[in-house]
Amino acid sequence: MDWVYNVPIKFFDYDLNQFKDRLNNFNENILFIGSKRVINTFELDVSNFQVIDESISNPDIHLLEKVLDKIKKPDLIIAIGGGSSIDLAKAISALYDFKENDILNLIKNKIYLDNTKHIPIIAVPTTAGTGSECTKWATIWDFDDCKKYSIDADFLYPTESWLIPELTLTMDEDMTLATGLDALSHAMESYWSVPSNVYTRVLARCSISIIHRYLPLALNDLNNLEYRKQMLMGSFFAGLAFSNTRTTACHSISYPLTMMFGINHGFAAAITLFEVLSRNWEFVKEKDLFLDAWDADDLIDIKEWLDDVSQNKLHLSNFGVKKEDIPTIVEEATTGGRMDNNPIVFDKTEIKNILLNNL
Amino acid sequence: MDWVYNVPIKFFDYDLNQFKDRLNNFNENILFIGSKRVINTFELDVSNFQVIDESISNPDIHLLEKVLDKIKKPDLIIAIGGGSSIDLAKAISALYDFKENDILNLIKNKIYLDNTKHIPIIAVPTTAGTGSECTKWATIWDFDDCKKYSIDADFLYPTESWLIPELTLTMDEDMTLATGLDALSHAMESYWSVPSNVYTRVLARCSISIIHRYLPLALNDLNNLEYRKQMLMGSFFAGLAFSNTRTTACHSISYPLTMMFGINHGFAAAITLFEVLSRNWEFVKEKDLFLDAWDADDLIDIKEWLDDVSQNKLHLSNFGVKKEDIPTIVEEATTGGRMDNNPIVFDKTEIKNILLNNL
Ligand SMILES: [Fe+2]
Ligand SMILES: [Fe+2]
Repeated sequence: MDWVYNVPIKFFDYDLNQFKDRLNNFNENILFIGSKRVINTFELDVSNFQVIDESISNPDIHLLEKVLDKIKKPDLIIAIGGGSSIDLAKAISALYDFKENDILNLIKNKIYLDNTKHIPIIAVPTTAGTGSECTKWATIWDFDDCKKYSIDADFLYPTESWLIPELTLTMDEDMTLATGLDALSHAMESYWSVPSNVYTRVLARCSISIIHRYLPLALNDLNNLEYRKQMLMGSFFAGLAFSNTRTTACHSISYPLTMMFGINHGFAAAITLFEVLSRNWEFVKEKDLFLDAWDADDLIDIKEWLDDVSQNKLHLSNFGVKKEDIPTIVEEATTGGRMDNNPIVFDKTEIKNILLNNL
Repeated sequence: MDWVYNVPIKFFDYDLNQFKDRLNNFNENILFIGSKRVINTFELDVSNFQVIDESISNPDIHLLEKVLDKIKKPDLIIAIGGGSSIDLAKAISALYDFKENDILNLIKNKIYLDNTKHIPIIAVPTTAGTGSECTKWATIWDFDDCKKYSIDADFLYPTESWLIPELTLTMDEDMTLATGLDALSHAMESYWSVPSNVYTRVLARCSISIIHRYLPLALNDLNNLEYRKQMLMGSFFAGLAFSNTRTTACHSISYPLTMMFGINHGFAAAITLFEVLSRNWEFVKEKDLFLDAWDADDLIDIKEWLDDVSQNKLHLSNFGVKKEDIPTIVEEATTGGRMDNNPIVFDKTEIKNILLNNL
């Protein structure tokens, strides 16, 4: 077997009213994860559900333990938000039945892997970027130890993903750009990743062609629902691609940028996108179709597009990183399962060059 | 709910040796459907299976009855071929448990719809065009009555599709062109079909961009495995698109062309493709992305590509149809579920114009 492709997700394209109707018609014992801001902004009726309405970004071990302790086991989790609330839902699904044990130990040793009593998840993204509505993994942080852990199991694909353009309207220009670039990084990195295959490359090209066309339009007209819908599709297709291949060097290098300098994940991933693309170029398959997806004649067109769409923001100095910070970043930039997923495993010298070129 | 998209197929990309290994390692009670020609050409060992090795094109009621009568119920059907052997597999899967009854009656009245004992199918296409490896329907012909019937049920999606480029190498230039154009028609018709949605249009554009790039290459280098693999993907993505939307005017008009004049299905569908496109144009969504997929600036580029790739073959007169035959074709050209799936329902006058313009 060369590869198998399978993302067993049903997905639905609701408008806001259909979404609310659907929420009102559940009879199951439901855990709803979504911030107060989302609940209030969209006037969601969650009175029949157990609710976790904290504003969650980067869920960590403490939050997870607290939530596991507090809730009674639901039949279904509905998670609304950027990646973080969906990640929390996945962690709960995987770990609920083990909650008497040491959670960190469970995660580190993947003891949840045999869990046949996981809880199904409906994922409802409010951004168009993380792709967590179509992956089978979640990130849980341990800020005490400055570490991040992955929870990863085939049963963690959301059972359903609901794509509702209205929910992404609340993103401002900066967030629209950052999440759009995150999605683009997923598509690009999936494309050149070591396990990429002819099918995931089609999905990645789909995503690139949509983001290339619609991200600039969405940024210029933030209230346009059609553009928002397209960006949700672009992100979803990137998710379908990288859920089967994972990401590569750009994401690997992004983690210390986020951890040490608080750079938004999407920007942190996209900052190195062009430098990594140009180094990986000889390994990029079906180059003609790849350039077609970019509507580009050569790589320089891609560079220009990235500079334009980001208004030249994709430089470390724009985020307060100084030349003397680079060695420290380099030390933390090689993440297992990311850097070794890149067609070239960049050594520290090369990572330094990449970062210097993006200062 | 606006729409749901779901094709619950796992698909595998095997090379010929992996495929043979896989065949040798089944322990189930298997029905193998594939022509002697395929079995011999590729030296397949089917000695452990029940085998139907007739060369099947357009399976009809008599063949179906004969096969149902002869076989004992398998646990799994492996169907290798163009659309026809996979269609036969679907018919067997749906109807086996009712085989004592009148088969035509079962089909007409869709009595198989509740069949919970259907037989899972592994579909292995030997052409890159029909898309039957990813649809949930089959066509069964009744030549006595000059009719075609559809068997259609959610359980009829193949459980697995195996895409094996080597198996498509045996197609000559004409068959490569015809099946490629069939796939292209599926993608195009799905794109402008009434139930098309933002997701199916992405799939259709993927397919178009692949076929646009690789069909001319494949035709010029019939033994190139990479091009054959791309065409399998182009056909598969077209299948994923139209399995959720069905086809439209071109397929509707194609049926009498095939039935009365024996025009190969792919040519019969593609003959009207450009005339239908230009009439449907105002209803084509996301026109910019659509033209991007074609690498075209406007419709005339698409016309030129079709003329070039087909070497100006897409004219009725090339297939022996005369001007005076057109009224008879028009009478049979409005197929329910096809013509009314087109954004414009062409009346007889307009169908006549379409055909005259393609004489
Ligand atoms: Fe990311
Ligand atoms: Fe067809």
